[in-house]
Amino acid sequence: MTSNGLSRLGQRIQAPPISWLMKMALGRPQLISLAAGFTDNETLPVEETRAILEEVLGAGSNGQAALQYGTTLGDSELRELTAKELHERDGAANEASVYSPERLLITNGSQQLLYMLSEALCDPGDIVIVEDPTYFVFLGALQSHGTEIRGVALDTEGIDLEQMRSVLDQLANDGLLPRVKMVVLVSYYQNPTGITTSLERKAGLLRLLREYEPSAGHPIYVVEDAVYRDLCFAGGDTPSALALSVPEVSERVIYVGTYSKPFATGIRVGYGVLPELLMTVVGRIKGNQDFGTANLLQQAMVQAIRTGRYASHVTRIRQRYAEKAETMCRAIREHFPSEIEWRHPRGGLYVWARLPEAVPTGLDSELFQAALDDDVLYVPGELCYAEDPTRAKPNHEMRLSFGAVPQEQIQAGIERLGNVLRRFMD
Amino acid sequence: MTSNGLSRLGQRIQAPPISWLMKMALGRPQLISLAAGFTDNETLPVEETRAILEEVLGAGSNGQAALQYGTTLGDSELRELTAKELHERDGAANEASVYSPERLLITNGSQQLLYMLSEALCDPGDIVIVEDPTYFVFLGALQSHGTEIRGVALDTEGIDLEQMRSVLDQLANDGLLPRVKMVVLVSYYQNPTGITTSLERKAGLLRLLREYEPSAGHPIYVVEDAVYRDLCFAGGDTPSALALSVPEVSERVIYVGTYSKPFATGIRVGYGVLPELLMTVVGRIKGNQDFGTANLLQQAMVQAIRTGRYASHVTRIRQRYAEKAETMCRAIREHFPSEIEWRHPRGGLYVWARLPEAVPTGLDSELFQAALDDDVLYVPGELCYAEDPTRAKPNHEMRLSFGAVPQEQIQAGIERLGNVLRRFMD
Repeated sequence: MTSNGLSRLGQRIQAPPISWLMKMALGRPQLISLAAGFTDNETLPVEETRAILEEVLGAGSNGQAALQYGTTLGDSELRELTAKELHERDGAANEASVYSPERLLITNGSQQLLYMLSEALCDPGDIVIVEDPTYFVFLGALQSHGTEIRGVALDTEGIDLEQMRSVLDQLANDGLLPRVKMVVLVSYYQNPTGITTSLERKAGLLRLLREYEPSAGHPIYVVEDAVYRDLCFAGGDTPSALALSVPEVSERVIYVGTYSKPFATGIRVGYGVLPELLMTVVGRIKGNQDFGTANLLQQAMVQAIRTGRYASHVTRIRQRYAEKAETMCRAIREHFPSEIEWRHPRGGLYVWARLPEAVPTGLDSELFQAALDDDVLYVPGELCYAEDPTRAKPNHEMRLSFGAVPQEQIQAGIERLGNVLRRFMD
Repeated sequence: MTSNGLSRLGQRIQAPPISWLMKMALGRPQLISLAAGFTDNETLPVEETRAILEEVLGAGSNGQAALQYGTTLGDSELRELTAKELHERDGAANEASVYSPERLLITNGSQQLLYMLSEALCDPGDIVIVEDPTYFVFLGALQSHGTEIRGVALDTEGIDLEQMRSVLDQLANDGLLPRVKMVVLVSYYQNPTGITTSLERKAGLLRLLREYEPSAGHPIYVVEDAVYRDLCFAGGDTPSALALSVPEVSERVIYVGTYSKPFATGIRVGYGVLPELLMTVVGRIKGNQDFGTANLLQQAMVQAIRTGRYASHVTRIRQRYAEKAETMCRAIREHFPSEIEWRHPRGGLYVWARLPEAVPTGLDSELFQAALDDDVLYVPGELCYAEDPTRAKPNHEMRLSFGAVPQEQIQAGIERLGNVLRRFMD
């Protein structure tokens, strides 16, 4: 045998960094994990889901339909309910055709849609621009497809358009603009920083990309990954890019949403709104991958939405996450050295903490090992940065999640971590 | 814009042929479809699933666990139950390590596993050998990855090893052996022919491939797609290739199974047993695609198996499909011209009918149109043949499914089709 016979993707694909984290956590029953991106366990809607499934499968219902194959693009009622809700949520500002159910695809969580987008658009050597830092599981999917990545920093309004312009100029200089396929924003309560992108910033990004498209020679898509949008707990909502009154909206914006995180992560139902060409191509990929998301899960979500249980559950968990975030922030104020920069989140599951540059937080760092020895786990910031050859990865940040950790452990976990931080920073 | 910006996969991917069939069926309320590969609707386990989910989510259960994220490779109990059942089913002949739960991956139906295997193994231009004819949805997935396909005919025992040898010799002559990555058998009640591969044939195939591996320079895998195995209704079971006492078994055989078809297609849970290297790579792909099949569905299957409801449902549907197959075969004997060759199936969902070569059955044929005009739909045989440049596609066969069509329509559907056939063949 001269080779293992794997494809280039098979050769290229790497173990997800999170598997390292999980290995480190093994055999430590006392560990408090502030790393897991799971959602709150205690508020999972067990009673509601039982009632919903009882209704979907019960007397007088069409139980058979829920247990039969559906269609590749998704249940038509779920597509309609989702499109309608999204239109209203965005203030019904834009024409309804932008939010047509015909443009909406149901997927196995939002992750599957991100994966299929990278398949539909990216050949090895193509370039995707992401936020710096960003959602690291998607980085793994891009890496496996041989995609190159450029990171653009965030400020409090979202992706930095000045830096975006200079990255695009550099790519143009290097003759690489034709390789740029999409820009990915995690636009609400970003994983990992908690930042929400303003509507003006989304508009500015679309304008900016339009300038560069002629040199690229093809569309440059904007993926708005809005999976944390429903997990807002400080009031207010920003319209999605679909609400912008520019023609690019229906041709360039891909909106990615999910019912998994706000309702139940064990029910994997995500969705996306896609330009026509991508709807066709991604729909075909979905056909090849699984010809449709499990119908029972889709029917469950239809029933959850139709009966108002989805909305009332979302209200409940917003309150829950507000409390958990407050607990975490109070503990940080009390126990973390004051040099550490962080912000009280307005939604989502994360607090992002920036240490002085002299204090590395990475998997190989003494700080990470000391935290582990004291039975507290965080996500090293470096894992959230893409492999971008044009800059070094910052390695002095950490992502702290209040999502999955039980309320009563947040305080203890932050206190442990704060003690470690003081030892390293004093 | 000089291009649409799609990847090569995006450019290459074609609409599935089944979408044509479905379009043709639209707006014909009287149509009897003998085309759909769906399962029987009336026997779907609505009551059982309701009870199972009530138990999974009810008092005293760990309902939260079922609604939380699981792990990428699948629920450990489901992996254990599945591996154990498979080992017993195969007569426990081989050592238990071959059936280790560590080698078992849970997927979104078997389709996702087939898709991931083609990603893990095949670059554009690589070659997959399939049965001629075969399961056409997988052909679409292979096509989208730029894979080339060779078809090898079937006899009553499975894939024809003489023809396989001559295909491999030809590939060797053309210097293409290093591109051959896997051979795919739909080994039980094959879609579309109904043929089951004998154990001797599987052993012969493994021996044959071992001869050619040195020239290939890498492993040539055998994918045993056993998704119809549980739908046997004429008694007897053939052990899978995993039962063979040769060392290649744990290194070369990929066994693909599913709970969707035998239990409920709206609950998409499939599984596979994989060699170590592929378990690693496909597991990583699964992580990138969705980091794990919906946990609620997996817990439902655990409960279905553990309570014996899965086994008793399978007993019930075997009886059901036996009756439907009998009805279809009786009607074929009565209404089809006697020159048509077909065989009473012993399992699965299909009858495969071969017309005289002078009577084309394809989507463009007069016969297909006449059948549609008379409100009966079949799958043209040509759709089940790969694009293999080395042979012309046979176009005088049809796949008839008794799976989804209601019992009382089978007779009428076959009678309609028989009348059309007589017009064309008399």
